[in-house]
Amino acid sequence: MSRIAYVNGRYVPHADAHVHVEDRGYQFADGVYEVCEVRDGRLIDEPRHLARLWRSLRELKIRAPMAESALKVVLRETVRRNRVRDGIVYLQVTRGVARRDHYFPAESVRPAVVVTARSADRAKAEAAAAAGVKVVTMPENRWPRVDIKSVALLPNVLAKQQAREAGAREAWYVDRDGNVTEGGSTTAWIVTEDGMLVTRPADHGILQGVTRATVMDMARDLQIRLEERPFTVAEAKAAREAFMTAATAIVTPVVSIDGEKVGDGAPGKVALELRKRFHEFADHGAA
Amino acid sequence: MSRIAYVNGRYVPHADAHVHVEDRGYQFADGVYEVCEVRDGRLIDEPRHLARLWRSLRELKIRAPMAESALKVVLRETVRRNRVRDGIVYLQVTRGVARRDHYFPAESVRPAVVVTARSADRAKAEAAAAAGVKVVTMPENRWPRVDIKSVALLPNVLAKQQAREAGAREAWYVDRDGNVTEGGSTTAWIVTEDGMLVTRPADHGILQGVTRATVMDMARDLQIRLEERPFTVAEAKAAREAFMTAATAIVTPVVSIDGEKVGDGAPGKVALELRKRFHEFADHGAA
Repeated sequence: MSRIAYVNGRYVPHADAHVHVEDRGYQFADGVYEVCEVRDGRLIDEPRHLARLWRSLRELKIRAPMAESALKVVLRETVRRNRVRDGIVYLQVTRGVARRDHYFPAESVRPAVVVTARSADRAKAEAAAAAGVKVVTMPENRWPRVDIKSVALLPNVLAKQQAREAGAREAWYVDRDGNVTEGGSTTAWIVTEDGMLVTRPADHGILQGVTRATVMDMARDLQIRLEERPFTVAEAKAAREAFMTAATAIVTPVVSIDGEKVGDGAPGKVALELRKRFHEFADHGAA
Repeated sequence: MSRIAYVNGRYVPHADAHVHVEDRGYQFADGVYEVCEVRDGRLIDEPRHLARLWRSLRELKIRAPMAESALKVVLRETVRRNRVRDGIVYLQVTRGVARRDHYFPAESVRPAVVVTARSADRAKAEAAAAAGVKVVTMPENRWPRVDIKSVALLPNVLAKQQAREAGAREAWYVDRDGNVTEGGSTTAWIVTEDGMLVTRPADHGILQGVTRATVMDMARDLQIRLEERPFTVAEAKAAREAFMTAATAIVTPVVSIDGEKVGDGAPGKVALELRKRFHEFADHGAA
């Protein structure tokens, strides 16, 4: 089946899904995005994704391209037209098309909207999670406004590629104080030797992860003790468990950091329990 | 006359100049660019622009989209088809189109190339330079690899917009040590009280400005003493002159910094002399 994309008001074949070369997303990375998991045709954590989208747009002073109700229709329709049962829907909003100039364009320039959807192989994702993944650490080198989910992702691209070339799945950024900030496209977590779940506060320096927030809710339900604080690389390497979260990764155990085994080198109990819980939530609880 | 753009091997009407929504330039800011001045139909400082382009591509491990000779033909043909006598030619190269994934795509994915050209109003630019421009300073908040001329320009967009809202033309970034790094899209210069031309070394933390290099050559010809070193905001405010350079700005006098007059608040002699010299070079010396 051929894929369909939503581009600025029209549903078009994926091959014909084009934006203008003077779209500010292309020339200035002047736009934001969201990736939302689709499960059984439903959008998982949609309210949190949309809330973050509006926040990103507000921070960049890009006006809302349409009402939330209309956007929800577009997301669903794109999922439906692509017959995605399990997969993802991708949404990108940029400041629109205007003659190239750094300054914001005239108020009359309309934001540009692109939505795509695709199926994902759930069995493959489960196998990866069951095996656990490797991460490598590298110095944080992004700008401080990573709380805005912008498409200025070149640093993340380079970090993740460097991780891959080192045989790892993810790069964990480390700040000047030696603390892990987050992964190239995931939130970083550890479980300490005494069973405390630890992740960095999402006030500054990291993205307010949607899956992060949902996993925190689940940890509370499961009565797992949780501490929001920075943790060092040494602490992560000495932790009982480590894992990463994101809409696409869900909860994925980390079994090695910089080539050093975490715990016994196998996926941790807490990570697997949270992943299972997330699946239950997504399969039955989310609308 | 309708404009023409070069897009991935074809010359198309500007209105039809499109790239795919999965071009990595659009989704990841995974690309680089150059802006070259056009004077009397000729490309100014073309060798330096191309050298910097190849360097940016090498740093990002994006392969050359075509031979330099072919690229030069495309640049000239785009200028010619747009009948640009005085103006600019814009070149963007991205890592190409691939299913969205942070990691580099398969080797078989070809880089994408877009070239546009447009005329500029030289009289208007001269009037702006004759009046001088205002700059405001703000904390440096970009990633350290600004030596790569990437399209991840969102921080620059926000800085320049903030400058404009403060009634200024340009934002000058200031590092943690209180030194000016560079402008949002220009190189920063001062002339000290004793006539020394000062600009920051272009090793790290700033772009290797093409116009910067050409102006340095001219300063040597004019036997103006030149020092490559960082300078503070206080030093800039107390300087005899300040100015900024870029392919589009050429040499543009800065007459106020954060609302404080530089020198007597009028464009400086050295800046105007260098601008005049640049015009002579561009009108007669460049090929």
